[in-house]
Amino acid sequence: MKTTTIDRYIESHIDESVAELSRLCAQPSVAAQNLGIQACAEKVAESLKARGFAVQILPTGGSPVVFAERAGKGDATLIVYDHYDVQPPEPLELWDSPPFEPTVRAGRLYARGVADNKGNFTSRLHAIDAILAADGELPCNIKFVVEGEEEIGSVNLEPFVKENKDLLAGDVCVWEVGGVDHQNAPVQMVGLRGICYVELRVRTANRDVHSGTGGSIFPNAAWRLVWALNTLKDQDENILLPGFYDDVIPPTPREKELLAQLPDMVAYYREEFGLTGFLKDIEDPLELAIQAVYQPTCTICGLTAGYQGKGSKTVLPAEASAKVDFRLVPDQTPKQVLAQLRAHLDAHGFEDVEIVDLGGNPGAKTDPDHPAVRLAVRAAEDVYDQPSRINPMIGGSGPNYIFQEYLGVPIISSGAGDSDSRVHAPNESISLDLYEKAAKHFARIVLLMGEY
Amino acid sequence: MKTTTIDRYIESHIDESVAELSRLCAQPSVAAQNLGIQACAEKVAESLKARGFAVQILPTGGSPVVFAERAGKGDATLIVYDHYDVQPPEPLELWDSPPFEPTVRAGRLYARGVADNKGNFTSRLHAIDAILAADGELPCNIKFVVEGEEEIGSVNLEPFVKENKDLLAGDVCVWEVGGVDHQNAPVQMVGLRGICYVELRVRTANRDVHSGTGGSIFPNAAWRLVWALNTLKDQDENILLPGFYDDVIPPTPREKELLAQLPDMVAYYREEFGLTGFLKDIEDPLELAIQAVYQPTCTICGLTAGYQGKGSKTVLPAEASAKVDFRLVPDQTPKQVLAQLRAHLDAHGFEDVEIVDLGGNPGAKTDPDHPAVRLAVRAAEDVYDQPSRINPMIGGSGPNYIFQEYLGVPIISSGAGDSDSRVHAPNESISLDLYEKAAKHFARIVLLMGEY
Repeated sequence: MKTTTIDRYIESHIDESVAELSRLCAQPSVAAQNLGIQACAEKVAESLKARGFAVQILPTGGSPVVFAERAGKGDATLIVYDHYDVQPPEPLELWDSPPFEPTVRAGRLYARGVADNKGNFTSRLHAIDAILAADGELPCNIKFVVEGEEEIGSVNLEPFVKENKDLLAGDVCVWEVGGVDHQNAPVQMVGLRGICYVELRVRTANRDVHSGTGGSIFPNAAWRLVWALNTLKDQDENILLPGFYDDVIPPTPREKELLAQLPDMVAYYREEFGLTGFLKDIEDPLELAIQAVYQPTCTICGLTAGYQGKGSKTVLPAEASAKVDFRLVPDQTPKQVLAQLRAHLDAHGFEDVEIVDLGGNPGAKTDPDHPAVRLAVRAAEDVYDQPSRINPMIGGSGPNYIFQEYLGVPIISSGAGDSDSRVHAPNESISLDLYEKAAKHFARIVLLMGEY
Repeated sequence: MKTTTIDRYIESHIDESVAELSRLCAQPSVAAQNLGIQACAEKVAESLKARGFAVQILPTGGSPVVFAERAGKGDATLIVYDHYDVQPPEPLELWDSPPFEPTVRAGRLYARGVADNKGNFTSRLHAIDAILAADGELPCNIKFVVEGEEEIGSVNLEPFVKENKDLLAGDVCVWEVGGVDHQNAPVQMVGLRGICYVELRVRTANRDVHSGTGGSIFPNAAWRLVWALNTLKDQDENILLPGFYDDVIPPTPREKELLAQLPDMVAYYREEFGLTGFLKDIEDPLELAIQAVYQPTCTICGLTAGYQGKGSKTVLPAEASAKVDFRLVPDQTPKQVLAQLRAHLDAHGFEDVEIVDLGGNPGAKTDPDHPAVRLAVRAAEDVYDQPSRINPMIGGSGPNYIFQEYLGVPIISSGAGDSDSRVHAPNESISLDLYEKAAKHFARIVLLMGEY
């Protein structure tokens, strides 16, 4: 490994890479709001072309996928899965600098999407620049699959990957997320939960009504919604859809062993998020770690009805809606959950509650002892101060099952994220120091893939 | 009665009055948002001064009260209760013309507050102009009490009236609302429900969290709110606060008799609001009329939590809130309801749900056979095509109990409202024809007060 030369390049050209990242973050690309998607895909394609990749912007039913490949010396192929779309930036008033005006403060770069996952994408480009500068060619084949709908449940990715199995084929896949935990240890995240995201909508009249006129005699959309939601989960956190837990697989002994090696999050979470306690009154660190990711969820992500301004307005809402995500664990599927949800609402007299499917995918996991995971751990050894930790399953979601199902590849992690990244929230950011480390880690993964 | 001269004046000067009304409606005055209150109070004061009234803008703890008086020939004093504040105009996108840009379309004037209640106020000024033009002086004393917080529960009116009992003293009070029903019959509304308006707020963390991270282990403010709301009212419309129904007085036989004389609203409501049915499956017109106003309510007027934009955002909300109004019937009081609500939430484990008191007042009613009511009915006789109907209690609320409690006056109605007025909703409007009729009716009330 010519890591000295490569590291020197990464360090001395870091400003150019951060500038490229800033340009990419300045381009809004909110899939949920269909904002800036095509423009962002084109910027991603240009960046890959500049590194000598053969780039195609491939249509899907929604946002296009940017696919890029460049052959290397060895036979092995590294697939890089990234996404150029970002979460909506709202609530805007909670940002200290505008979400699409990347700003450096105290060694961190702030922007919507900088951590999730534009920073990881450009850190990988930066590593490739360093390798090409040192060697003129890549040690392995690299394929980029950069989609534009990850933040809305990768709604078109599965048919895309299925139809392009041969084009996308490879040996190992580097996932979009990665980085260090709150103790600055690098983490291999080898499992992701699935998700089923829905909007529940109720309409009870053709317009809002004066609450004095209708309060006693007209149906109220907000009440219908509250009652319907209340049937979904009880106050002990039991999700009440029939059959919901049937396909839940508990953690294996090896997974529990790995979870036990992860840091105790109890005090950290309490302090970081100002919590007075955890659901189910859990206090034990391992129990909390298991509960956090091996249990499915039913989370109300948003509620909307009637008057939401200052003070009072005496109105009876004709419409009400809730955004709800179900985080799924293997072997649950979104399709099952949608069917269970419809059946449940109907059985409780809520035929009037419309379910709008906003996308989803099942969860999946890679064997934590797979050689590719060991490779990724080894690649981190001389980059970070601490050895890698292996997290068998994280709480978030992503379309990893698609890559495992159709391409049969193990999934490894790299990236610039840390516990201050505020992913999906206002003031999303990355540490510039960790950005450099992410590039170095990815460069080593690529080098090791030359011998894979 | 010199009604011919007066009517001719009202008809020939109607454009000037509508122009004055339009100027008043162009001045936003949203108490809930503290928008334009002082400016609107000054406009109201100027209009009254222009009619020779002695005007005072009197401070309260909130919006000032415009008080104006002018002596007349007779001894009797007519109190006119109006308000210059209006409901918030939101949702703005549902207005066909901007809410604060009064616009005439097909014989109707559209603007926020035009029906509730700026149009009634200026129609009364117009009637006074006509009387003064005909006679040079008023037949009775008139006192205007124009407050600026009616739409937020008249939160400061009670101490104001209590402290100014002598200043405000009178014999009969004309209420701010009035007009015709959906069959164009004029209505005397002699009872109003009370109201207790609250915002329920929950906070579970110091910021929103990625739903993948927190969904299984962190408390969710939106779920707390849903569960708390669910305990307030069951799906059979029973409000579950302990003791809530204890002070509810059912309608008297005379009130039922009057309700039975009112038009059947069943088909009208269904069609007008696109309803598939009524609460409790009521189909009988009298039963619906009784249920509509002689039962208290618990109405969710608004719900807010987390992400409410397009598409999906996987966020676990740290805050959630609901606007809730309780319509009260005699002898319920807001103070009792606030105490019951706190006790109820605490008893159900919702000590974390904060109650913000957004104002309220008890309901009250005038004897439907009071001489003042007969006077108002008689005053309508040759103005409208149909005889007046007497509605013993309407669904809406207002501070009528304050006038009854401290001034001991009966309350009568006049005004330009009709069933298309969309009070509190987008596209609020009045018919210009009914505006003229309202002025004529009020002029006759004033004339009859000369003999009261």
